[in-house]
Amino acid sequence: MDVLAIPERDRFQIVTEHDADHVIALDAGLGFERTRGLVMIQIFTQSGRTTEVKQRLFSTVAARLEPLGVPGEDVFVNIFENGPQDWSFAFGRAQYIEGDLAIPG
Amino acid sequence: MDVLAIPERDRFQIVTEHDADHVIALDAGLGFERTRGLVMIQIFTQSGRTTEVKQRLFSTVAARLEPLGVPGEDVFVNIFENGPQDWSFAFGRAQYIEGDLAIPG
Amino acid sequence: MDVLAIPERDRFQIVTEHDADHVIALDAGLGFERTRGLVMIQIFTQSGRTTEVKQRLFSTVAARLEPLGVPGEDVFVNIFENGPQDWSFAFGRAQYIEGDLAIPG
Repeated sequence: MDVLAIPERDRFQIVTEHDADHVIALDAGLGFERTRGLVMIQIFTQSGRTTEVKQRLFSTVAARLEPLGVPGEDVFVNIFENGPQDWSFAFGRAQYIEGDLAIPG
Repeated sequence: MDVLAIPERDRFQIVTEHDADHVIALDAGLGFERTRGLVMIQIFTQSGRTTEVKQRLFSTVAARLEPLGVPGEDVFVNIFENGPQDWSFAFGRAQYIEGDLAIPG
Repeated sequence: MDVLAIPERDRFQIVTEHDADHVIALDAGLGFERTRGLVMIQIFTQSGRTTEVKQRLFSTVAARLEPLGVPGEDVFVNIFENGPQDWSFAFGRAQYIEGDLAIPG
């Protein structure tokens, strides 16, 4: 996604559908109601991005989902980070460590 | 959950059922047998809780699952942590960063 | 797995199958094509392993999957780490903290 300066081919997503009765997602006390169409996005990525970039990511995700019929109430995102040594994209290689890919940032 | 001092509306859970033949969960060498009703709980949350609080969390989870028919052998829990900048609960906002929610602890 | 010096009974795996149209996994710009049989392995484990050990892990995983019909193009692995206080294997105990298990490494 461009807001994170991620290359176009650097895209890895799994979509898992859940029955509504298998999900609980309250409002954290913020005072709003979710619909049954909640989208929870969990991002696993390398560390190194600033808080400002993450804020832009969150707002961009919500802005792009809204025209697809996902209201702001239903956009939940969190981020978990690791390092370049923690990724192997294929072939049993640690591409960031072995020089096949440049470490971002 | 009260043992973690989490507000009541701060509750986000996804339950995913797995066929028994898609799960392997041995005993880590502790010397016990699991049933086919294993419950694996993976908690993604903000950092900042002490080891003592985590120990109380583990024991509370097991104690509350037991009367529901989940024996102690079947309660597996782990915790992964991030920071306040890593959460957007809705509306494309980083609620902890933008002052909508107080950072816990 | 022996490359990580993990005891034989320390094995916890969930296999989840996904329809091909629910997964996007490009090549990170490395220049190869995946098949529809992609295997994404996400490892949650304790911190403390070196980059060299992780490299050996990645290559060993790919080498062991190949004879099972999974080509190197389809082997995606990442690792996320936490600490000994973040695990409860059963009975509501924090086994590494309470002395039931030795902390690895």
